[in-house]
Amino acid sequence: MSERPHFTRDELTGSTSVLYSEPRLVRFQDIDAAGIVFFARVLEYFHDAFVNRLSAVGIALPQMLRDKPWKLPIVHAEADYLGPMRFGDPIVVEVVGVKHGAKSSVLGYRARSEAGHMLAVGQVVHACVDATTFRPIPVPEELMQALTRTPGKPET
Amino acid sequence: MSERPHFTRDELTGSTSVLYSEPRLVRFQDIDAAGIVFFARVLEYFHDAFVNRLSAVGIALPQMLRDKPWKLPIVHAEADYLGPMRFGDPIVVEVVGVKHGAKSSVLGYRARSEAGHMLAVGQVVHACVDATTFRPIPVPEELMQALTRTPGKPET
Amino acid sequence: MSERPHFTRDELTGSTSVLYSEPRLVRFQDIDAAGIVFFARVLEYFHDAFVNRLSAVGIALPQMLRDKPWKLPIVHAEADYLGPMRFGDPIVVEVVGVKHGAKSSVLGYRARSEAGHMLAVGQVVHACVDATTFRPIPVPEELMQALTRTPGKPET
Amino acid sequence: MSERPHFTRDELTGSTSVLYSEPRLVRFQDIDAAGIVFFARVLEYFHDAFVNRLSAVGIALPQMLRDKPWKLPIVHAEADYLGPMRFGDPIVVEVVGVKHGAKSSVLGYRARSEAGHMLAVGQVVHACVDATTFRPIPVPEELMQALTRTPGKPET
Repeated sequence: MSERPHFTRDELTGSTSVLYSEPRLVRFQDIDAAGIVFFARVLEYFHDAFVNRLSAVGIALPQMLRDKPWKLPIVHAEADYLGPMRFGDPIVVEVVGVKHGAKSSVLGYRARSEAGHMLAVGQVVHACVDATTFRPIPVPEELMQALTRTPGKPET
Repeated sequence: MSERPHFTRDELTGSTSVLYSEPRLVRFQDIDAAGIVFFARVLEYFHDAFVNRLSAVGIALPQMLRDKPWKLPIVHAEADYLGPMRFGDPIVVEVVGVKHGAKSSVLGYRARSEAGHMLAVGQVVHACVDATTFRPIPVPEELMQALTRTPGKPET
Repeated sequence: MSERPHFTRDELTGSTSVLYSEPRLVRFQDIDAAGIVFFARVLEYFHDAFVNRLSAVGIALPQMLRDKPWKLPIVHAEADYLGPMRFGDPIVVEVVGVKHGAKSSVLGYRARSEAGHMLAVGQVVHACVDATTFRPIPVPEELMQALTRTPGKPET
Repeated sequence: MSERPHFTRDELTGSTSVLYSEPRLVRFQDIDAAGIVFFARVLEYFHDAFVNRLSAVGIALPQMLRDKPWKLPIVHAEADYLGPMRFGDPIVVEVVGVKHGAKSSVLGYRARSEAGHMLAVGQVVHACVDATTFRPIPVPEELMQALTRTPGKPET
């Protein structure tokens, strides 16, 4: 595990540039019995941003799942909860960055208020595996470039 | 749609025998911002009872999805909400009965308190379709018998 | 129950005007083990449109839940599933209309492809109850007008 | 954050005793578009075990949320995914242990196959806060003892 790519808390909270940003509202049904967003829903928000970011750089995940000889199963996920999110709160979910290891990539995320107050940060590590054997393989160059690319900037 | 099998409200609330019954607790994360169970979660409770009842009569749905030449997509679902369910409430979810139409089957459900107070009733209609063409087909005799069987009683 | 307001299937599928319309993508985690959208998630899509439509006509549901002397618990929900929705499918969720009964209101919904192919229709009945006693009360004029209003058109 | 209590991977996978154990089946609707359990659902499984374990040692979380002068918001959660979980798989979810810091407690979890094959491990850190001011407070002795207690053994 020593080689697993990783973000520090400061990299997630302090970054002044992001790869992707999307506004959303905390959903009615994402609240739990304690009256705030259920903690696991925030990881769903991060994953939604992952899917939408891939789409923004031209990778349709539905097609990738069908057609590519590799898959990207999640092998680690974590989040720190820094402030409460309540029903209807307008938040911004951001993909802060991506780092690549030998056979896995980590994406860093944060959720913040519109005013910039940090509400949650997190990171999700995807292994890269052969779609047939499920053995770990190096992250394909094609995928590495796509994950790192900034939306709106053409592929070089 | 005239031939779609159907349960009346009285059949669902008044039935004194059921095909399957399971106790459960209302989950922390199934509560919504209004402080009661989110309405769509109750349909999930019904579906969980469906899967567990199939298992109780010897049908493993995971295998069925892989191996059988037919599928059972849901074409209609409905529920009436009769009383509030709150976090931690012990409830009993029941499969009240099943009726078969030409090319679909309906299962009737209810959720009640342990004391027998009705909290929700509902019904879910599954079409029977060919797994390859997705065309409606008559409900296979094998499935019809299994759905109607009472758990614990051996197949005759 | 005879007085419960109701939409016919034709009113839901055939309506040429809607009160509210929002595009969305079928989420990765909304797929079930059969490979299509889990049926109860479609009711969540309808409810999301409900919340967003209220917001579009100037009613913030989070505040309403806190401040108003009435609540709108769901007493009935139903959906017909007309076509499969798969991960990443772009769909349009619409609030087709609203009808008011003595002490409840029903909202009609549909989900369609961008090309207009109907994928699901449904309706959700909200009772209007006193926030303290939970006894049914007539739908307040203020709410009735807001629910019926078309977004973008000023209140008259 | 230096004082936050923590479990090592070895403590989670290698522990030969657990505080709580419950069997469950991977639900139909917990599968995602990649055909395995959606990663965030595993954290829900852990949280369900948390609620059920509290109940097993005599703490009803619903009442605690209403009556106690403290709350236990989640400030950190993480999981490692070690093997795929598919629809219908029988798994065992375990609360491996608990550790207390000055103003927070961490619970360690794992999900394994019935045969003992590790599928996921994780940990969730709860801060202890005053229910009114939301300021961190020391974990109450009462709670610390309850969290550490083994179900079935009487309070000493």
